[in-house]
Amino acid sequence: MAQKPSIPKGTRDFSPTEIAKRDYIFGVVKKHFKIFGFQPIETPSFENSETLMGKYGDEGDRLIFKILNSGDFLNKVDEATYSIKDSRSLTSKISEKALRYDLTVPFARYVVMHQNEIDFPFKRYQIQPVWRADRPQKGRFREFYQCDADVVGANSLLQEVELIQLYDSVFSDLKLEGVTIKLNNRKILAGIAEVIGAHDNLVNFTVALDKLDKIGVEGVKKEMLAKGISEEAITKAAPLFELSGDNASQLLALKDLLIQSEQGSKGVEELGFIINAMEHLQLQSANLEIDVTLARGLNYYTGAIFEVAAPKGVKMGSIGGGGRYDDLTGIFGLKDVSGVGISFGLDRIYLVLEELGLFPETLNKSLDVLCINFGENESMAALSLVTELRKQGVTADVYPSKAKMQKQMKYANNRKVPYVVLIGENEMNTNTFVVKEMASGEQYTYGLDQINDFIKRL
Amino acid sequence: MAQKPSIPKGTRDFSPTEIAKRDYIFGVVKKHFKIFGFQPIETPSFENSETLMGKYGDEGDRLIFKILNSGDFLNKVDEATYSIKDSRSLTSKISEKALRYDLTVPFARYVVMHQNEIDFPFKRYQIQPVWRADRPQKGRFREFYQCDADVVGANSLLQEVELIQLYDSVFSDLKLEGVTIKLNNRKILAGIAEVIGAHDNLVNFTVALDKLDKIGVEGVKKEMLAKGISEEAITKAAPLFELSGDNASQLLALKDLLIQSEQGSKGVEELGFIINAMEHLQLQSANLEIDVTLARGLNYYTGAIFEVAAPKGVKMGSIGGGGRYDDLTGIFGLKDVSGVGISFGLDRIYLVLEELGLFPETLNKSLDVLCINFGENESMAALSLVTELRKQGVTADVYPSKAKMQKQMKYANNRKVPYVVLIGENEMNTNTFVVKEMASGEQYTYGLDQINDFIKRL
Repeated sequence: MAQKPSIPKGTRDFSPTEIAKRDYIFGVVKKHFKIFGFQPIETPSFENSETLMGKYGDEGDRLIFKILNSGDFLNKVDEATYSIKDSRSLTSKISEKALRYDLTVPFARYVVMHQNEIDFPFKRYQIQPVWRADRPQKGRFREFYQCDADVVGANSLLQEVELIQLYDSVFSDLKLEGVTIKLNNRKILAGIAEVIGAHDNLVNFTVALDKLDKIGVEGVKKEMLAKGISEEAITKAAPLFELSGDNASQLLALKDLLIQSEQGSKGVEELGFIINAMEHLQLQSANLEIDVTLARGLNYYTGAIFEVAAPKGVKMGSIGGGGRYDDLTGIFGLKDVSGVGISFGLDRIYLVLEELGLFPETLNKSLDVLCINFGENESMAALSLVTELRKQGVTADVYPSKAKMQKQMKYANNRKVPYVVLIGENEMNTNTFVVKEMASGEQYTYGLDQINDFIKRL
Repeated sequence: MAQKPSIPKGTRDFSPTEIAKRDYIFGVVKKHFKIFGFQPIETPSFENSETLMGKYGDEGDRLIFKILNSGDFLNKVDEATYSIKDSRSLTSKISEKALRYDLTVPFARYVVMHQNEIDFPFKRYQIQPVWRADRPQKGRFREFYQCDADVVGANSLLQEVELIQLYDSVFSDLKLEGVTIKLNNRKILAGIAEVIGAHDNLVNFTVALDKLDKIGVEGVKKEMLAKGISEEAITKAAPLFELSGDNASQLLALKDLLIQSEQGSKGVEELGFIINAMEHLQLQSANLEIDVTLARGLNYYTGAIFEVAAPKGVKMGSIGGGGRYDDLTGIFGLKDVSGVGISFGLDRIYLVLEELGLFPETLNKSLDVLCINFGENESMAALSLVTELRKQGVTADVYPSKAKMQKQMKYANNRKVPYVVLIGENEMNTNTFVVKEMASGEQYTYGLDQINDFIKRL
């Protein structure tokens, strides 16, 4: 019995049309990565389990796809372990490898392993799939591409400035104008916690603060109270709930609020440097906004924090994010390597471009010229012409069999071919070919010595 | 304790230099795939196990990487199965997904699942990694890219002709001249077995014949005898051991030998069509040779068989291969879909280009312009210039910190930067910048309003 085939949940096949669109996005992103001096690396799809396990928290450990050892994998499992029949205990005995969960940990591993070949500061980009055993849902997949650019071994804030420019360049080139790059700094968050006397509770404070957009001021206060943050602290933090105005006035208000915190003041200074630099350099189409509620990946970031929101009016979570982190490679034994990086959310950017109709028309066209097949001799003549066209870089094809004209023209329509070429007996005898322009329906006759005239028309 | 990181055996990290070279090959291959009218698809990295298992023989089944089910995977294993502690029996209970082993089976699955969206004949290409739990050795990896182009739903021999042209176009464009495209036909092999009375033993016959180059005529005869092929059959097959001369004379000799076999004669006719067409159309730089010892994947191919050998003088196995197969999709319930395809052996092509020094010099250059960093103010001026250069598509960067001049110049040398830009206090005061051409050591001064003159020089 033949199987009715399917693919695993949370995975996707990509059709030629989808690949064309994805490649378009990748192409633009890569172009700007390169122009900004980033270089590509690639790491294996699976890593040794000990490289990945314990790096993403308990939840992450659970979501990592593990690869079963090859061969007689039970051979090495001792009876004691086997007899308790516990999935968790058995896993490490029968699986030594796991699929990449993100690009950051493999990158850290790469930097440590190749530190003697790398010219620091190292600006690397990496665009590869990652896998997570998450519950699939709309827009969340078990296999998806990540697209990261990081600079390691450089402490200067120039990097933060450049990364904002990089976002702006990519989104401007994609014609996705009006994205908002939100900017915060971990030191500001820490300073706030310090000033209001909640520094033991920074994570809870920022997690709650981050929900300001969703649950409003009262909701945030309620959550903070529930998490053990005092009434007094919340009252002191009140100015944060009402920060408004342009970046300059927010900076002033923050400077005021954090004047007694060394760390907080440092954060304001860093934020100020970046804001000033961007005013000097000008963005092409993106907006830059301070957002002190931004706290993504707090445990990870140590300086700047970025997040990119789609243009107003498009309902979509963040389409990019990143920040500065100290000690990227410490887990693998290389100390004092600071880094800063950003990522692009490919799947969401794809959906936004689709929604706004921003994919170029030309992506639909996969074939410039199709020659109709009128039989064996005629198709050889057609293949001669097509061979010449291809040598000149024209995407051309001969329909592979002498099917009915209607069927061949339907194929041409489906593939959105702009020019159909006809070489029948008559044309063979006169060394000519007929070109039918599909949009207008007009026909032209060329001699075989006029191929270049035809190419000019394309 | 920090871990000393490593990667699983048989896998590789790719450095920026290696990626540049691999991307160069992929770029050329894709360009010609597109010009020839092929369209890209991508399939998930893992498939449901039943899609892959049983498709590659027992050996293949063993070499497929299986993914452990997530969560409490032992929960669903019954006591009876568990208690016998047998790896093979347990595998199907604790693993439902497996990593892609090649691109052909996923492609067949894709065609069946998407048959109503596909415009047949479907010319698809696919360039993705595959994984095999093979014993790693020099040139054999557990993760490697396959690169396939196939046409399905078309029976005409025009496809075979085009695929030979495609090989020729790609290798000519890669400047890898003098490759030999070997051509055979499964029907000729079947005809030979029939004529010499060994048709029950065709696989053994062709496997032995395939070794002619390696073990010589006597070795082949000995192996055939050992495999139960009669003295008489071997004597009748003798002309095959001495086929020589150009394609035309080989065709004549084969026609003669196979005149009494309907299938064999059909094979000779097909071979003749292709050879004639190629003489008419001319190859750019490849050689086309009939090779009746070519029998790769015999159980799979039903018509033409291709294999590409590197230019003479380069020691390397085949750098490409393919052929025609009937019934690609029968395993998944879609009958009568004939296909023909070729693949490119990326890793070997890489090694051949490396050995012959055929990678373009330009691949080494990842940065056109580096601005030296003289401090905070100067670096902001440099970043202004770099911003302008990048907008014009120039790959440019500012060194991220005010390191010693020597260190910054060393970085420029390592990254093979052709132009270093200096903006110090003096240049800031005079609105100029100094360009140092690294090859000649010469220096030029430009005004900030002369950026376009500088770009012209690049």
